Order: sequence, then C-alpha cells, then structure tokens
Amino acid sequence: MADSKPLCSRDGDPMAAEALLRDVFGIIVDEVIRKGTSASEKVCEWKEPEELKQLLDLELRNQGEASEQILARCRAVIRYSVKTCHPRFFNQLFSGWDPHALAGRIVTESLNTSQYTYEIAPVFVLMEEEVLKKLRALVGWSSGDGVFCPGGSISNMYAVNLARYQRYPDCKQRGLRALPPLALFTSKECHYSIKKGAAFLGLGTDSVRIVKTDERGKMIPEDLERQIGLAEAEGAVPFLVSATSGTTVLGAFDPLEAIADVCQRHGLWLHVDAAWGGSVLLSQTHRHLLDGIQRADSVAWNPHKLLTAGLQCSALLLRDTSNLLRRCHGSQASYLFQQDKFYDVALDTGDKVVQCGRRVDCLKLWLMWKAQGGQGLERRVDQAFALAWYLVEELKKREGFELVMEVAPVLKERMVKAGSMMIGYQPHGTRGNFFRMVVANPALTRADMDFLLNELERLGQDL
Amino acid sequence: MADSKPLCSRDGDPMAAEALLRDVFGIIVDEVIRKGTSASEKVCEWKEPEELKQLLDLELRNQGEASEQILARCRAVIRYSVKTCHPRFFNQLFSGWDPHALAGRIVTESLNTSQYTYEIAPVFVLMEEEVLKKLRALVGWSSGDGVFCPGGSISNMYAVNLARYQRYPDCKQRGLRALPPLALFTSKECHYSIKKGAAFLGLGTDSVRIVKTDERGKMIPEDLERQIGLAEAEGAVPFLVSATSGTTVLGAFDPLEAIADVCQRHGLWLHVDAAWGGSVLLSQTHRHLLDGIQRADSVAWNPHKLLTAGLQCSALLLRDTSNLLRRCHGSQASYLFQQDKFYDVALDTGDKVVQCGRRVDCLKLWLMWKAQGGQGLERRVDQAFALAWYLVEELKKREGFELVMEVAPVLKERMVKAGSMMIGYQPHGTRGNFFRMVVANPALTRADMDFLLNELERLGQDL
Repeated sequence: MADSKPLCSRDGDPMAAEALLRDVFGIIVDEVIRKGTSASEKVCEWKEPEELKQLLDLELRNQGEASEQILARCRAVIRYSVKTCHPRFFNQLFSGWDPHALAGRIVTESLNTSQYTYEIAPVFVLMEEEVLKKLRALVGWSSGDGVFCPGGSISNMYAVNLARYQRYPDCKQRGLRALPPLALFTSKECHYSIKKGAAFLGLGTDSVRIVKTDERGKMIPEDLERQIGLAEAEGAVPFLVSATSGTTVLGAFDPLEAIADVCQRHGLWLHVDAAWGGSVLLSQTHRHLLDGIQRADSVAWNPHKLLTAGLQCSALLLRDTSNLLRRCHGSQASYLFQQDKFYDVALDTGDKVVQCGRRVDCLKLWLMWKAQGGQGLERRVDQAFALAWYLVEELKKREGFELVMEVAPVLKERMVKAGSMMIGYQPHGTRGNFFRMVVANPALTRADMDFLLNELERLGQDL
Repeated sequence: MADSKPLCSRDGDPMAAEALLRDVFGIIVDEVIRKGTSASEKVCEWKEPEELKQLLDLELRNQGEASEQILARCRAVIRYSVKTCHPRFFNQLFSGWDPHALAGRIVTESLNTSQYTYEIAPVFVLMEEEVLKKLRALVGWSSGDGVFCPGGSISNMYAVNLARYQRYPDCKQRGLRALPPLALFTSKECHYSIKKGAAFLGLGTDSVRIVKTDERGKMIPEDLERQIGLAEAEGAVPFLVSATSGTTVLGAFDPLEAIADVCQRHGLWLHVDAAWGGSVLLSQTHRHLLDGIQRADSVAWNPHKLLTAGLQCSALLLRDTSNLLRRCHGSQASYLFQQDKFYDVALDTGDKVVQCGRRVDCLKLWLMWKAQGGQGLERRVDQAFALAWYLVEELKKREGFELVMEVAPVLKERMVKAGSMMIGYQPHGTRGNFFRMVVANPALTRADMDFLLNELERLGQDL
C-alpha cells in the first residue's frame, strides 16, 4: 500500500489536476461572472426539490468519476444555484460581488490554513490585526481588540459572553449557577441571534428583556431605562444592552448616544449589533446614523453584507485593552500554543476564540480595500443610499403600491419561478407581508430600480 | 450619485475584473499548486513579524490601487504564507490538497450564498442532506439528522447543548439556573474544545469531569463509571460522555463499546468527538477502531482533516429523528423562515443552527467524493496507516531518535527557518516535548518518510 505512488489525484497526475482546475475556473467565469451578473439571464432556475434531486444525481458512490463528468457536475451545480451576484437579487442583506474580494477568497482557499497561530498563518495573523485596527479606527477607537467570527450571530454571542465574564470572571470555571440571575436588553427589532445566543450560552431566552421601539423601529431609551428598573425589581442583575445599527427588517438605527447614557448610568456593557449598518461608518455623509458608537464596549460588523466581501466576513470589535478576549476564551492547549516557541506567542490568536481551527476571513476584505481604497468603498455606501432614495421617490409616483394583504407571497412565487428577481418579504407588527428592498449590490443603477418597480407591476397585474 | 454607472469594479469595467481574476488564478496555479506542492521548494519562508509587516505593506489607505499592484500583493501573500499543501507540512491534522475539493471550494466562493434556506441555496440544501446521510450511513445509522458547523469545537458544543436540552427542555427559555448542577465526562486526552465549550455554554469548566486514560491514551471505562458515581455523590447530574476517536496528540481511539455500555446503564448521552478519526470509518481494514460508534447519540467528524476537503468541513451527526436540532436551536425568525412560503419549509435549515448566515461546506466534500469514489477515499486512509507504520519501523532502525528533553523546540526553529518541513511538538504527561507526526496528506510516499527522518537527523546533528 505505502508505495511510492501518491494518491493525490485519482490517477496521480498533477497535470490532470491543473487542467481540471483551469476548466472549472473557465466555467466559473462563463457561468457565474458573465451570465450570473447579466440582467438578461435569470436570477435562478427554479426546480421543485424532487426534480432537482434527480437533475443533480446527488448520491455518493463507491466508484469515482472521470474529469468530464466532474466538470458537468460543476456546471449543473452552478446552473441550479441562485445567482446572488445578479442585479435582480435583493433577497438578502448580501448581494452583488467584488472581483478583488473574490480574488482574495480564491487565494484563501488555495492556501487552506487556519488563523490560530503565527506559525502557520504569519501573513494572516498580521493582516487580521491590521484590518481590525482599521475597522476600530472607523468606530472611533485608537486601541482595542477583536477577531473575525463565523457570522454575526456568533459575534453577538461573543459580546454577551465577554460582558458576563467581565462582571463575573468566576463564571468561566463555575458556570451560571454560581451567578445571580442576569438580564440583557435589546429592542423588539433586534436580530433573532440575540435570543438564540442567550439560549446557547445557558442564560435562557427569558434573560432577554425586550425594549419598545418607535414607529421607525428605533429603540426608545426611556423604555430601556424602565425595563432595567423592572428587571432589577424582579431580582435580576442587568449586565448588557445590545443596540442595533441597521435592523434586519426596517433598517433602523438605534439612538446610540442616548442608549450609551443609560448604560453609563447603570454600569452596563454596551454592545452594538452593526452587522448590517456598520459599513455606513465609511461614509462621511451618513455615518452620523451611528453617532455614539465609539462609546460601545463591543461592535459586531459584517463587511460581507454592504461591502460585498463575501460570506463570511464578520468582525467582532472590542474597546477593551486588558486582554479580556483571551482571558475569557483561553485554554492554553499545550499542543498548539506552546509557550516555548521561538517567536512571540502573543501573535497566536487561537486562544481569543472558542473555535480551534478558524478560517481566514481577512484577506478578501483587505484585498478589496487595497483595490478600492476607503474612497471607493465610501462611494459604494453613498450610492446605496442614493439609490434607495431614488426608489422611494419613484415608488411614490406609482399607484397600486400600497400595502395589499397577502399579495407578497404570491408575487414572490411568481418572481422566483420566472427567475426574474428575488426580494425577501415578511410581516411586521400589525402590517401584513411586505417586500423588504435591500440596496447593497455595488453594480446597481437607477435602471435596476425602475426594472424592479415595473416587474412588480407586471407580476401583480391580475391581482 | 445614483446615476447609471455601477460601482462594481474600480473603473466599472467587467473585462478588467475578469482579467484580474484570470491573472490571480494563474498565480495560484504557479505559486501554490506547482511550487507549493514541490518538495524542492520551501514549506515556508520564515520572516520575523516586524519584517513581514514591512514586506506586506498592510496598511489600508484611502486611495485604491491598480491591478498590477493588486497582483503583486497576491504574490506576496502567497510567497510568505505557509504551504499547507507541501509534502513536508506535518504540523497540523490537516495537510495536502485535493484538486476536486479545491474546485468545489472555488465554485462555492463564486456562488457566495448562505446555507439557511432552500430559496437561496436549493442545490446546497439538498446536497448537504445527501452528504450527511452518507456520513451517517458510515457511522451505522439509516436515519438521523445533522448539520455542518464552523469547526469541530462548535460541533462539540452543539452536542453538549443538545444533550442538556433533551434532558431539560426548559433550559432554552429559563437558562441553567433552573437546572440542577450538571456533569459531563471526557478523558484526559480529550480536545481542549470540550472545556472551552463548557465555559461558553455557561456550564463552567468545573462541570467537565476528567476520566483517566491508559498508557496508550484511551479512556478507561472503569474510571468513567467511578467518576459518574463521584459526581452523583457530590450532587451533580451526569448527562453526557464525550469519547474521543483519534485524540489530538496521541491519536488514541477510546473503547466506544465499553463506554456505550456505561452510558446506557446511566442513561447518558454519548457524544463521539471523531473530528480526527471519523474518516477511518471509510476503511474496511481500520474502521474497527471505532467499533461501537453506532451506539452514539452524536458524532463530530471533520473531513477537512484526513480527507483534505479544505477548511472548514466539520459535520455534526445525530441519531435523533425527533427534530431535536430544530427544537433546540430554532427561533422562527419571520423575515427568513416565513411559514407561508410556496415550498416545503422543512427544507430551510436555518433553524437547526445557532448561526444565521452559514457558509456552504458540503460541495467540496461532495465533489471530491464524486471524483474519488468511496474506494479512492478508502485507499487514502489505508495509505496513511501504511505510511505511519512504515515510519515507525524505519524510526526503530535509527539511533538517536529516543526522547531527548527540550530538543524539539530547537529543531522546530531550525526546520521553520530553513523552510524544509513543519512538524508540531508538545509535551505530554511526564514526557517532555516531542514531535507529533501526522500522516494525512494523500500525496505522501515512503520517500517523504525517509526525508523526514534524514532531515531530523541533519537538523539535530550537533545536539
């Protein structure tokens, strides 16, 4: 068995491996980058699950397949996948694509390393530090800490875990049973990860106290103050407020200055979930929406959303300079973080996180930033706001765009089956289902906004 | 601002974007796939952190850069990164590369979608289901559940969270304070993520009871029984045992049948951390090492390790068929998991996880499996065992390879600075630092094992 023939590719031929990758890259250029971004192609080619299973022939067998078959499989995967880079994909808070970010992601995949030690990720340990420093500077901090997490939900959990650890360091060893009942506060419009996180971290969803919002979806600071009083009266210990900068459904920005005042008065950790809205900090024109963010203790910011860095790119930023992240999460595994290494082991980031292996998420953002410059990224944010306003103005000019109950699910089905565009819908409070327009793709123009309105009219003309 | 010119690439030119990607792909082929896997090139080009910072020019500025400069940056990133695909990289439990897996990863990046709904990930929702089914079949289950997680540490945490939720469903809402003190059991040789997870989940590291191991590093079932008794005597409620199939330092496989007997007697959830050893299930010759795994309640298995699927590919597999995963983690976010969708919403996987956006981790494994077949993957596992045995036999023939205290850090520094190879070292129990040889790269041959021994001799000849 252990002879001199490696088993790297099916036939051990490095030229065949290279040729396969070249062909796959060619398919990506044709099918994703060209056709996938073309307004004249479909956003998706809808198939019912049972039919799609047949088309894909998903079963994994004992026999391997030849290169031509593998290439056909890549084509099928791409064909039936949704083109999130398409100018009519408005369904999520991420959309569009950036060639430099994609280049960074392909380089990342080819290098296939883990972010945990300087030893095996020298470039990326230093790069992550630099990118986090830049993001912190935009928040308004000249020092601090941070780390990239696998998504905003986990960034938010980190914030909650750090806040409780800072107040009760015993908790790491002795657990929550050694602590009084805790309470954290967030608005009705917060992301659902706050409750998910509270359950996962053992606090329970009951520990999340919901603060009222105004008609625009912003947290009401007076109600926050009231909720804190109520929690205390019930014997709970308030420890954290999670404000939201850019809520998921309405895009509302909580009033951070007033919330920071409340936190200061009560000695509470202020976390800002700016997963969606953080990128607005790049715009001189619009960054006032996050005024007060520099007073936060932690910020979650996902450049994979408005900045199109690619899934996932989610930074947790901390004002802390006391090594809280490492104290809270560290375990000093002797096989990975040897203290007798020949370089400064402070560079090993592995003990900052609850993961062991951790993907490299900094290169795609760094490379895109190098190419676009802060300026280029700022233009994108400003353009997104301008297009959103354009859309609102055009909408007002058209009749028939008031809210009609239960039309959204029908329109959604029609647009997906036609493959013409994708927009997310949901109910909200007393309002029935409505479409949530997300303007994030940097390739969008006014013409795309016009198309959207025309297509909604067309799809719904018989309703 | 919102005019008709998109801001996609710096100059809005799609041809320039394509050209850039082609050039980057060419650099990857030359510098990673050819040079990076060549035994005559260095594994790494070691630089001190301060020097490397200068070489990389990491700072993010306001002005963007032209394509030629971006390409030069990609070259520098690759040049100073460690080549984990190199035949002398033995430093981690992952190493080597597979062209089909890399193809799958590049397609994944280009499609840039999230695994949470059928709507935006139709292909990958069905594919993940199929891949998990295949992995479960290898465990020995004809039904069950599962999900890909961002790494084995988080897979392990999921298992602990599911076990406590199954026993105390109240915990999700009311938190750990509503529960009696809990105890979980794992061996001295377990991965450090078990303790990290216990802290993060609010149980505290004290809840982890350490079971003794034999001289090979395997959990001693009699001591497990004893520890359970001790915990109960102290008033704690045992709820989970985490056995390890392939420990991190010694590669030991816990005796699962005997451990399952203990779990059955005491009504405990059996989790198997098979992050490293799970892939051995593919080998008819060696899968007996995991005999009894079919009796587990949950299994963590990382195909990014021995199967070279690429970081990260980490499956959590469950025997449960009662929708435990969804009940434990679900939150029914109305904007994402609308119940009035036009397709079967059971296909939306988002409520199985504590993340919101979740990367697609199934395609790389699926494509590699299609290309290699179960057969090809089995050959790799068998070859890894055969090479490991070859190395042991060759080692025995050479003098000077006994344990010499504190030689490992010096040899490590020398090999990294020479760039000739990378092997991890650590102390263990009463033993001082020693090298941990990991034979995972499918491109390895006997000649590489011979090189390793010769190079260690050469590097240490003056010691």
